Amino acid sequence: MQSNSEYFPPPPVEGVAGGGTGYGWLDSGARRIDIMQRQPTSDLVHVWTMPSTANVGQQEHPRPLEHISMLAARNEKESVQLALRPKVTWSGGGIAGRVQVNCTELRSDSHVLEVGKCVNIFRVVPMLGVPDALVPLELTQGRAVLHPGETLPLWISVYVPSSQPPGIYNGEIIIDALRSDAICLQTNGTFVNKQDIRNKVQDLLDKMDAFDYNSLSEMVEGLRDVKAGLGNLEELFVVLSNQLGTMSMESEDHAFALRVKLSVTVWDFVLPITPSLPAVFGVSETVIEDRFHLEHRSSAWYDALDMHYQWLLRYRISPYFCRWGYNMRVLTYTCPWPADHPKSEEYYSDPRLAVYAVPYTPALSSSVAAKETLKKELEILRTKSHWKKAYFYLWDEPLSLEHYDMIRAMSEEIRSTAPDARVLTTYYCGPSDYSYAPGSFEAFVKVPNILRPHTQIFCTSEWVLGTREELVNDIISELQPENNEEWWTYVCMGPTDPHPNWHLGMRGTQHRAVMWRVWKEGGTGFLYWGVNCYEKALSPGAEVRFRRGLPPGDGTLFYPGQFFDRNLREPVASLRLERLLSGLQDYEYLKAYASQFGRPAALALLEKTGLYLGPDRYTHDHGPIDLVRTEVHHYLRTDR
Amino acid sequence: MQSNSEYFPPPPVEGVAGGGTGYGWLDSGARRIDIMQRQPTSDLVHVWTMPSTANVGQQEHPRPLEHISMLAARNEKESVQLALRPKVTWSGGGIAGRVQVNCTELRSDSHVLEVGKCVNIFRVVPMLGVPDALVPLELTQGRAVLHPGETLPLWISVYVPSSQPPGIYNGEIIIDALRSDAICLQTNGTFVNKQDIRNKVQDLLDKMDAFDYNSLSEMVEGLRDVKAGLGNLEELFVVLSNQLGTMSMESEDHAFALRVKLSVTVWDFVLPITPSLPAVFGVSETVIEDRFHLEHRSSAWYDALDMHYQWLLRYRISPYFCRWGYNMRVLTYTCPWPADHPKSEEYYSDPRLAVYAVPYTPALSSSVAAKETLKKELEILRTKSHWKKAYFYLWDEPLSLEHYDMIRAMSEEIRSTAPDARVLTTYYCGPSDYSYAPGSFEAFVKVPNILRPHTQIFCTSEWVLGTREELVNDIISELQPENNEEWWTYVCMGPTDPHPNWHLGMRGTQHRAVMWRVWKEGGTGFLYWGVNCYEKALSPGAEVRFRRGLPPGDGTLFYPGQFFDRNLREPVASLRLERLLSGLQDYEYLKAYASQFGRPAALALLEKTGLYLGPDRYTHDHGPIDLVRTEVHHYLRTDR
Repeated sequence: MQSNSEYFPPPPVEGVAGGGTGYGWLDSGARRIDIMQRQPTSDLVHVWTMPSTANVGQQEHPRPLEHISMLAARNEKESVQLALRPKVTWSGGGIAGRVQVNCTELRSDSHVLEVGKCVNIFRVVPMLGVPDALVPLELTQGRAVLHPGETLPLWISVYVPSSQPPGIYNGEIIIDALRSDAICLQTNGTFVNKQDIRNKVQDLLDKMDAFDYNSLSEMVEGLRDVKAGLGNLEELFVVLSNQLGTMSMESEDHAFALRVKLSVTVWDFVLPITPSLPAVFGVSETVIEDRFHLEHRSSAWYDALDMHYQWLLRYRISPYFCRWGYNMRVLTYTCPWPADHPKSEEYYSDPRLAVYAVPYTPALSSSVAAKETLKKELEILRTKSHWKKAYFYLWDEPLSLEHYDMIRAMSEEIRSTAPDARVLTTYYCGPSDYSYAPGSFEAFVKVPNILRPHTQIFCTSEWVLGTREELVNDIISELQPENNEEWWTYVCMGPTDPHPNWHLGMRGTQHRAVMWRVWKEGGTGFLYWGVNCYEKALSPGAEVRFRRGLPPGDGTLFYPGQFFDRNLREPVASLRLERLLSGLQDYEYLKAYASQFGRPAALALLEKTGLYLGPDRYTHDHGPIDLVRTEVHHYLRTDR
Repeated sequence: MQSNSEYFPPPPVEGVAGGGTGYGWLDSGARRIDIMQRQPTSDLVHVWTMPSTANVGQQEHPRPLEHISMLAARNEKESVQLALRPKVTWSGGGIAGRVQVNCTELRSDSHVLEVGKCVNIFRVVPMLGVPDALVPLELTQGRAVLHPGETLPLWISVYVPSSQPPGIYNGEIIIDALRSDAICLQTNGTFVNKQDIRNKVQDLLDKMDAFDYNSLSEMVEGLRDVKAGLGNLEELFVVLSNQLGTMSMESEDHAFALRVKLSVTVWDFVLPITPSLPAVFGVSETVIEDRFHLEHRSSAWYDALDMHYQWLLRYRISPYFCRWGYNMRVLTYTCPWPADHPKSEEYYSDPRLAVYAVPYTPALSSSVAAKETLKKELEILRTKSHWKKAYFYLWDEPLSLEHYDMIRAMSEEIRSTAPDARVLTTYYCGPSDYSYAPGSFEAFVKVPNILRPHTQIFCTSEWVLGTREELVNDIISELQPENNEEWWTYVCMGPTDPHPNWHLGMRGTQHRAVMWRVWKEGGTGFLYWGVNCYEKALSPGAEVRFRRGLPPGDGTLFYPGQFFDRNLREPVASLRLERLLSGLQDYEYLKAYASQFGRPAALALLEKTGLYLGPDRYTHDHGPIDLVRTEVHHYLRTDR
């Protein structure tokens, strides 16, 4: 059917002269891949690393692969990202293909960092199109689906326990493209090829064909054999029931795998168990009650709050549960159990907890019983050694003298039982009906004059400062440290871009810079209003929606696990929460450096590296972060 | 372990007073969903319809569901979108859940529109984050994966054959949420529950236990039974091998399904089989050769070109294959076989083909043999009745008199054998070295003076017009229709937003408006340079990348199927290609209306509905499209 060969001349090389349908200028050095043959994973998938401060979207372009090298102190968590993008589609089912991602344990000469305990891998899932949620890859037995033309970022965290001996720990991340035509079942950790199963059935049939149907003894013997085979098959079916819908590796030899070296230098420094900066973070009990259908103060309710508390403690923050009352009155408490309960001692004495909120019980109902409860609580707590961690957070952002009067009344009630109690008050302006011009900086800065002695912790919004870092001096000079007055800060809706905050869509260094800012400005504590303040939902797996009127991500630093997988009972952290933790860890590095070499030297380090100069002047790249950490590591180690 | 009930007062309703951790203003009317029980799909998934001109992204918000009502002529394809978004996560495996989507046949009193043949469902897959590629849902047996917090758009196409009797055709789209704990295997169209399989194995074991091991005859009997059972099991394993990794419905009863009514009114009008507007579209043979590893003029090469040709004919366009030569010389041909080959007659006589490109064989090598071949071809073709469809496209966008001389020489060679041959030349400016100011509109508009009689089809870029539609008159007044001179237009890199074109990220009506524009401006043909001009790739499933230097989507209107699924051999259409088809169908509606009621009436219809007034004034909403179609339907039907 083909025509004479004279019809067309041999084709020329196209596109040399440019234009038209000629190819563009990009030659990717593409190779011909025959997906019918098993191929090295590196021929099927682009893999490259990205720093933890990169927001790696689905459109991220591949880069050359570099092996991973990390520096970590003890009691520190460091993270890095691994981006995967299919070069070619090798699978059916409307996807590019599946990969199996495993990490080996990380070994030094004689010690290990264990996978699962110290090393964990997550899929970075976009929220509103922005990479944010970290879903454990172990949910899918380390398997990930790659989609055509899409980059999948993985998040790799290494936590070094305080007790871990310093040294260089080496391991590998092994990425194996799974063949769609080699579907296997995993049973008790070993891998069974599906072809094996069919062979087994065929074997049984062959055996039965070969029976001597005239010899009873031989048949009994043969049947015993067949029965054993069937039992074995049934076992495989049980596995099948659990595993159907997933695939696993063809073999464990990883002959076609792509390997990324992961090296962690653990140095001598131990990040303090008790965070140097008290950072208090609000957890809405209402949101938990609604989503998980928990009756207030039921046994399941206590379990849920306890789970959230324990989970959040890993992030170097001091959680407080909260519920809004009338006006901006707020009930806040770190421990859901009363002071005479053993759990209370466990919570308040935990060295990871820097400070705790004591419930001002009459916040929601000023009954006599509530007042009595408060008094009883205070009488117990003020005798404890952990009492120095206690604070009261009574009212959010008072705006008028009427609000100030409320705070005064509550504070007086508290201090009548516990005169040394500390009250925290948040504000971003002065009272609108006082002698200063409403909304003026002067009205704001003079707030301590009105709240003294009813507040000890003056917690102001970073938003107020704008880019004028020098206003910090004006705020601090109004305080009386000799009377235990402290300056804390907070971020919420403001400040917005380009200033540091935790909104979705901000750059990674912007998330991390919140705590660089706190260190540079010198506040002695930090408050964040909400970590789980989604829109109302009544099912654990209901879609998580950000609240209207708030910048996306504001008030939400983790997600309910059930939103990502019905079997996931733990929360799913956001990138932003991890970057907050990194910022708190950086804080410890800077503090350690400053205590050794003085604060001016630490400030010079920030300046020299370009890490953080002010709320609108901080690094956009990851480079200065590694630079600061390496310098601190170098000088602190040398100096010892 | 719980503490005294006096400790906290009963919780108040939160957030009534606004602010803080109180919920926002949005109450979605969320219901409590127990995913451990089977739930109606409507409780698990938002489903709503969107018009075909909507770009439905992953962040698209749910709307109330309305049933679908379409108007279609015969030989017309109409499309609509169905968006799905999980309300809740009901599945494991790191996804929200899976749904099974089926469409019933559409029935009138006595006729049907068949699923698969006339009704098809596609997943809309984003390219560079923009919804674009239409991947057949049948690839995954009608199953789709829903991801947490993501909207999945489905594209539903109904094609009405020319022979279809008019009438109202009704059917349903059935959407069934699949339970992840009810995994079943499909065998020969019937559904087998996995529990059944385990039961079968258990049965066999029980049978063997019950054997009388002393009776040979009973054992032989029993063994026959067991063997049959095993054979049956093996059959299930075969199915398993093919189906593992996918899931299917628990049952076919759809008791928990969500049903969307789909009603299509087929009216009496038949869109002409031969498109009224010749629209020629370039297909790069080089791209096909490289990606599919095809030797030029091998049997597989002919098959591939034929497949592409046949597939593209469905879109009311006249394909031509092309390859760029030296400079902007271009070899273009509609049929890869020579004129004396039976395939040539089949191609050129196809009534769906409006026009065809005859290869100017010496384009790539001006050997004596090539010139002889051309002469022979022309001598055959000019005797055929389809010769009136023939045109030559020799050079893309000549820029200098040297280029004009080349065209002249080629045209003369062609016309020495076939004096009535038509040569098409594309241009967006006059020659830079002629008497007019280079780049001036005058130089552009006077091109026919230089190219006459070496060009008959003057094909100009829409980009030249900007928003000045009135310049069309200047162009047309330079032509000599009495000498068969025609004005065609083209779009490529330009015009860009907000003017009509087919770039990725433009709005749907902008894609569709390309052909509204052609109708209003009155050109008698249209050219598009490339439908498959991706970056170079050497494997069928290699990632499709847009060429650098071109606006995304420019030169690519479909994708190789293998990029989306290794088993998909046909191309995958883009939304933009479907909207181009819709535009060409709209052209027929407008033409039919104009021939009945006059062109001014048709222009008034455009104006009255706001469909299209000019390149920067056309509807952004779908409403006017339905309005125009309904009006045409109403008046043409009434008038008959």
